[in-house]
Amino acid sequence: MRNATYISVVGPAEPPAHLYAHATELGRLLADASAIVVCGGLGGIMEAVAKGAAERDGVVVGLLPTLDRASANPFLTVAIPTGLGELRNGLVVRSGNAVIAIGGSWGTMSEVALALRAGLPVILLESWDVVDATGADITGGIRVESPAQAVAAALAAAHHNETQ
Amino acid sequence: MRNATYISVVGPAEPPAHLYAHATELGRLLADASAIVVCGGLGGIMEAVAKGAAERDGVVVGLLPTLDRASANPFLTVAIPTGLGELRNGLVVRSGNAVIAIGGSWGTMSEVALALRAGLPVILLESWDVVDATGADITGGIRVESPAQAVAAALAAAHHNETQ
Amino acid sequence: MRNATYISVVGPAEPPAHLYAHATELGRLLADASAIVVCGGLGGIMEAVAKGAAERDGVVVGLLPTLDRASANPFLTVAIPTGLGELRNGLVVRSGNAVIAIGGSWGTMSEVALALRAGLPVILLESWDVVDATGADITGGIRVESPAQAVAAALAAAHHNETQ
Amino acid sequence: MRNATYISVVGPAEPPAHLYAHATELGRLLADASAIVVCGGLGGIMEAVAKGAAERDGVVVGLLPTLDRASANPFLTVAIPTGLGELRNGLVVRSGNAVIAIGGSWGTMSEVALALRAGLPVILLESWDVVDATGADITGGIRVESPAQAVAAALAAAHHNETQ
Repeated sequence: MRNATYISVVGPAEPPAHLYAHATELGRLLADASAIVVCGGLGGIMEAVAKGAAERDGVVVGLLPTLDRASANPFLTVAIPTGLGELRNGLVVRSGNAVIAIGGSWGTMSEVALALRAGLPVILLESWDVVDATGADITGGIRVESPAQAVAAALAAAHHNETQ
Repeated sequence: MRNATYISVVGPAEPPAHLYAHATELGRLLADASAIVVCGGLGGIMEAVAKGAAERDGVVVGLLPTLDRASANPFLTVAIPTGLGELRNGLVVRSGNAVIAIGGSWGTMSEVALALRAGLPVILLESWDVVDATGADITGGIRVESPAQAVAAALAAAHHNETQ
Repeated sequence: MRNATYISVVGPAEPPAHLYAHATELGRLLADASAIVVCGGLGGIMEAVAKGAAERDGVVVGLLPTLDRASANPFLTVAIPTGLGELRNGLVVRSGNAVIAIGGSWGTMSEVALALRAGLPVILLESWDVVDATGADITGGIRVESPAQAVAAALAAAHHNETQ
Repeated sequence: MRNATYISVVGPAEPPAHLYAHATELGRLLADASAIVVCGGLGGIMEAVAKGAAERDGVVVGLLPTLDRASANPFLTVAIPTGLGELRNGLVVRSGNAVIAIGGSWGTMSEVALALRAGLPVILLESWDVVDATGADITGGIRVESPAQAVAAALAAAHHNETQ
């Protein structure tokens, strides 16, 4: 697995149905590209991306906030019970060569912010906007319109990031 | 120090001058109210709030991202070298009964998001806006216009939070 | 991978040759038993157990102390750059349903102590003794003489632990 | 507080009475020497050292394993609810310029091992012995017979450590 590309996928535990479908497709496409998927290991977007990757025999890692594995979704290759609570969000971010955010929640926003802080490429699919006092959009990241665009952008950015 | 109120203050390491002044005043007012201030321990807003609190003999804790104390600002009562990098942002947030954010940066945004995720009161002084796909402001938190308003709001919210 | 058994293997980065061989055999046997191996991801015992598991197409997770993957040994299925330094030892321990320690070092001892503190089964193969003020051996854990005994003891203890 | 010396004190939550008394005396002496005391914030040795330091108006920091402050002993100047469980042991160790261990428990042993791993000075007062396969004592650290000796050794070692 040396030289594998790791893509972290973050998103809410209770997404709308169309984003769950998007995340499942994202998981399939990342597995097809032989990327290792890292997520928070729980339900919603985390479950959907793991389910898609598992359908295509991809490797999916779940970094759980709890100390046990009972909360893990059933599609993970590996579940790590960190016991760190929301601090594990930072580990999810650190584990990716690029981060894809689908939809939004405060947990997701913390991960996007940590990724931008760390200089990691961030791909946003139907996620939030951040505007400054003048109303200017300063969200950062690369906005995309589909799972296929998200995967293409993440892999290109991750590759660029690795070879710098 | 039993029953002390802890207020976490977050903000960028390179703020504009008027926000540095705001944070210094904030530190003074928090110390006058006998609140314990928790911050990230480095420069900018972190230094300013520590400086203000130190002027009034307040207690200020700095949770540093590094493994040594060389990066600490000189106004801290206690400096803890966590060695956790940006994951220490989560510890800063967890340590407060309420969180005051001054100005904005990605590190600050991660702290605001983690605080909102944890259900902690968040007070925003010249910080960012987050808007959803419809353009609606969903930033969360309580917006204030001055250090005095920030302290009053933080202490009221912290007290309410503690007695629930 | 639901219901997989996770075995954490801990040991020094610079072991004597016969312990490297023991750890490689341990990796093979754990993979043959379909256990997921968790280790610290670096060299020495960590590399040896990963090498053995990889020979038998097992799954091996490395939880690295650093923020990048350059320090990872080449036999890991998944490498997680935690950036936590030696605090990641606690994550290695938490990730196992049982812990096998081979040889000794201060890092290894911290992991054995954390595992005993957490009530996890600990299997010791040529590891250390701890004696109290009276000279009584209070090391804790189950002592074994070979990799095969270590695997049998770890799987039995992990299973017992899971079904309690 | 710039240039303050930080001494971490570790020991079990349920010590025998004479060790509780030793730890209280240790807290008094460390406060008299203007050292900042860092501990795990709970009962037993952690409470005793905090009580002693508080009697002499010293500064004591408690790094709690839990997410709230309800478990803190009442003698802390500052209590930080890390929510990291036993991983906070590593933070207690990192925060000291030297570490004093009183008595023994698995949590204490993990802290002694992490400190030795990090190259920190470790002072042992009625703590454990570690012997290798040949029966040789390889505990590491400096053994002392009284709180006064412990403080003198810790301050000397911390000072030596800082000026290297």
